[in-house]
Amino acid sequence: MPDHDVVDDTTLQDRILELREAVRASTPLVQCITNTVVQQFTANVLLAIGGAPAMLDHEADAGQFAEVASGVLVNFGTATSHQFLAADAAIEAARATNTPWVLDPVSVGGLAYRTTRIRRVAAESPTVVRGNASEVAALAGIGLGGRGVDSTDAVDDVLHGALSLARDTGAVVAISGETDAIVGTVDGEHRLVRITGGDTLMPLVIGTGCSLGAVVAAYVAAAGRTGEAAADAQAAFEATIAAHAHFAAAGIAARRVASAPGSFAVAFLDALYSVGPEDFAAVGLTVEVLDPETAGSPA
Amino acid sequence: MPDHDVVDDTTLQDRILELREAVRASTPLVQCITNTVVQQFTANVLLAIGGAPAMLDHEADAGQFAEVASGVLVNFGTATSHQFLAADAAIEAARATNTPWVLDPVSVGGLAYRTTRIRRVAAESPTVVRGNASEVAALAGIGLGGRGVDSTDAVDDVLHGALSLARDTGAVVAISGETDAIVGTVDGEHRLVRITGGDTLMPLVIGTGCSLGAVVAAYVAAAGRTGEAAADAQAAFEATIAAHAHFAAAGIAARRVASAPGSFAVAFLDALYSVGPEDFAAVGLTVEVLDPETAGSPA
Amino acid sequence: MPDHDVVDDTTLQDRILELREAVRASTPLVQCITNTVVQQFTANVLLAIGGAPAMLDHEADAGQFAEVASGVLVNFGTATSHQFLAADAAIEAARATNTPWVLDPVSVGGLAYRTTRIRRVAAESPTVVRGNASEVAALAGIGLGGRGVDSTDAVDDVLHGALSLARDTGAVVAISGETDAIVGTVDGEHRLVRITGGDTLMPLVIGTGCSLGAVVAAYVAAAGRTGEAAADAQAAFEATIAAHAHFAAAGIAARRVASAPGSFAVAFLDALYSVGPEDFAAVGLTVEVLDPETAGSPA
Repeated sequence: MPDHDVVDDTTLQDRILELREAVRASTPLVQCITNTVVQQFTANVLLAIGGAPAMLDHEADAGQFAEVASGVLVNFGTATSHQFLAADAAIEAARATNTPWVLDPVSVGGLAYRTTRIRRVAAESPTVVRGNASEVAALAGIGLGGRGVDSTDAVDDVLHGALSLARDTGAVVAISGETDAIVGTVDGEHRLVRITGGDTLMPLVIGTGCSLGAVVAAYVAAAGRTGEAAADAQAAFEATIAAHAHFAAAGIAARRVASAPGSFAVAFLDALYSVGPEDFAAVGLTVEVLDPETAGSPA
Repeated sequence: MPDHDVVDDTTLQDRILELREAVRASTPLVQCITNTVVQQFTANVLLAIGGAPAMLDHEADAGQFAEVASGVLVNFGTATSHQFLAADAAIEAARATNTPWVLDPVSVGGLAYRTTRIRRVAAESPTVVRGNASEVAALAGIGLGGRGVDSTDAVDDVLHGALSLARDTGAVVAISGETDAIVGTVDGEHRLVRITGGDTLMPLVIGTGCSLGAVVAAYVAAAGRTGEAAADAQAAFEATIAAHAHFAAAGIAARRVASAPGSFAVAFLDALYSVGPEDFAAVGLTVEVLDPETAGSPA
Repeated sequence: MPDHDVVDDTTLQDRILELREAVRASTPLVQCITNTVVQQFTANVLLAIGGAPAMLDHEADAGQFAEVASGVLVNFGTATSHQFLAADAAIEAARATNTPWVLDPVSVGGLAYRTTRIRRVAAESPTVVRGNASEVAALAGIGLGGRGVDSTDAVDDVLHGALSLARDTGAVVAISGETDAIVGTVDGEHRLVRITGGDTLMPLVIGTGCSLGAVVAAYVAAAGRTGEAAADAQAAFEATIAAHAHFAAAGIAARRVASAPGSFAVAFLDALYSVGPEDFAAVGLTVEVLDPETAGSPA
C-alpha cells in the first residue's frame, strides 16, 4: 500500500502534485473511444497535461491497440455500431493486461439502445466511472438522466447512487458539478472527496467534461498499477482526485484571463499546460469517510 | 397570430431581441445530425448563445431522442449511411411531435448519391432550409451547386429558386452570403428580409455556416410552436431572421478584436455569448414583400 | 521542365513564395479523407492558407468528388470501414484524372489490420507520403512505428527508409520532425531538403502534423500538373517543400505571440493566414544530393 493517505488533506495535496509530475514524466498513452464532438478538444487536453492521445476506434484493431495503451477511455456520446464493437474489444484487452479503463456514461438513461450498451460495459469492471450527477444517477438506477450532457440533479442527491455504483462495480465514481464529488476506497472504507474550483464558464465549452475522463485515465495510468486490488483501488482514487484538481486549478487560472467561452477555452488549455503548485493550492479539497449503513449521508 | 409583424423594421428589431432572450430563458436542446468537421464548433456555438447541443446520430435511438429534443438539425456534409438512417428516424419523430427541424443542404448538387438523400429529406417538410446560394440553387433545381461549401452564385441570382423552394416545401428559406436573404411567409404573403453584418473572415472559419443551422433550430424552438400552421410559419420566419441577426452582430463585434481567422473564431464565440442590443442595432435589416407573379423580383 | 531548380537555395526560396501565391490565386479544393480528430483543424488550416476543404468520405460518392477535387489527402488515423472504401474510390479517381494525392501513414506499424490497409493504398502511387520518422520507417519496413502519433525515431535514422520508399512508390517522401526532411527527384536524381523552423509547441497542438498533409495536397495542386512524369515529380517536390516552409514560418511567427498550446493553436492559424516573405526568410533550408549507392548518407 502507498504510504500516503487520502484522509489527510495536506498529504493529499502533496500526492496530487506528485501525480501531476508523474503524468509529465511518463507521457501516458490514452486510447480514447469517445464521441466525435470532443475528440479534438480531448486530444489537446491530453497533450496539454503531458499525455499522449490516440483515438483509434476501429473494431478490427481497437483491442490490439489497448494492449499497448497506458489507459483507455470509453464514452458513447456519438457512438456508432463500430465504436460499440471497438469498445468491447478494447475493454477486454484492458482487463486482460490490467490496464486502467474509464467509463464516461454520457447519454445513459433516457435512450433505450444506448443505455443497454452503456450498462453492458459498466458491468466490465471499469477502474473509474466519471459523469455528471444525472448520468451517475441514471447508471446507478436512481434517476432518469439529464438532457443530453446537462446535469439536472444536484451532486448531493446522487451520493447514495454513487456509493452503490462504487460497490457494485468496484470503480472509483466521480461526479462532476460545481463541486466535484469523488467516491473511492481506502483500506476497505468508502471515502468521499469534494473538490471546488473551476469556473461557471467551463460548462459552456464543449468537452470540458468528456476530456476530464481522458485526463483521469492518464492520471490513473501514471499512478501505476501493482495488480494488488486494494492498492490499485487506492491509487486510482488518488489519481482521479488529482485529475479533477488539475481541471479545477486550470479553470480558476483561465478565468483570470478570460470572461467569455471562446477565449476561456483557449485559456483553459494554456492553464492545463502551465498551472503550478500555487494554482493547485487554490483548489478546495475536503475528505469524508462514508458510513456504509447510511450511504449518501457523509459521517 | 403574433401581434408583431416583420414588415416593419423597428418592430422586427424588437422581436429579434425578444427571441434572443427567449433562447437564453428556455435553453433549447438541439439535436444535431451534422457533419463531423463542425460538431465541436457547432456545440460551442449553441452553448454560447444559451442553447444545449446533443449530437446523437445513431440510427437505433436518433428518433427516440428527437421526441424530447427542442429542435433538430440535419446536415449531410460528411454523412455516413448510419447518419442517413438516423436522420430519417429523427425527422419522422420531429414531424410527429411538431418539433421544428432545419435542413442544411450542404454538398447538394454535384454528387449523385448524396443529392438523392438530401432531396429525399427536403421532401419531409423542413421548418427551415438554410444554405449558401449555390446550395439553395441546387436544391431548387436551378443551379449546379458550389465546390464543397463555397458559394459561387450571388444571392440575388437564386431568389427565384428560394421562393419556389419555400412554396414547394413550406419552409422558411435562408440564403447565407455577404448579405443574407431570408424568404418566409406572413399572412399568406411571401416576404424577403435581407441582413447585412458579419465579416469577411467568417467564411475562413469552418462551421460558421453549418453552426448557423443549429442556431436557427434553437431560435425556432425558443419562438414556440402552436400547431397552427400560419402562426408557426411566421414564428419560424422571425426566429430564422433573429438567428441570422445574432450571427451578423457577433461577426461585427468579433472583427473589432481580431483580424485573422484563428483569433476571429475565438472572438466570434465570445461575441455570440456577449452581444447586446447595441450590437444587434449595428446589423442591417430590410424587409420586402415578394410579388408571387415575379418571383425573385422584389416588389 | 520548370526553369528553376531546387539545388540552389536562393532560387528555391523564390519558388516557395511563388507557390504560396499560387495557392492563394487558385484556391485548391482538397478532399480530405482524414481522421475525425483533426477534421476541424485541418479545414481551418486549409482556409487560412487560401485553400478550400471538403471532408467528403462516403464510399458512395468519394470517387465522384475526387474527379473534381484539386487534390486528395488520405489519413487513416480513425478510419472506419467506410473510410477505407471511400479512400479506394477516391484514389482510383485521382489516379485516373492525374489529380495529386497525399498519403499520411499515421498509425502504420503496430496494428495489423490498419497497416494492411495503409500498405495497400501506399502501393497506389501516392504523389507525396508525409509522416513522422516512426511512420515513414514503418511504412518503409525499417521500423516498428511510433506510439500513436508520436515520433520516436530521429529523422536521420530513417533517411535510408525514406529514400527506398521514394524509389518504390515514386512519391515525394516528407518526414516531419524538429527538422523536416523531404526527399524528392530532380532530373532523375534524388535530393534531400532539410527545413528548420516551427516551434516545440507545435506537437502539443493536435492536427499540426495531419493538417500539413492537406496543405501539401493544396500546394501540389497549385503547382500544376502537366502529365509529364519527371516535371510533375519535380513540381510535387517543390510544392511539398513550400508547404513545409509555410508551416515552419507560421510556427516561428506564432511563438512570438503565444507560449502555451491553447493560444499557440490560435496564433498558428493566424500566422498561416498572414505570414509574408519576411517570415518565410526565417525558415532554414538546405539542399543535398543523395547518392544512390549510399542511400541515407547525404553526399
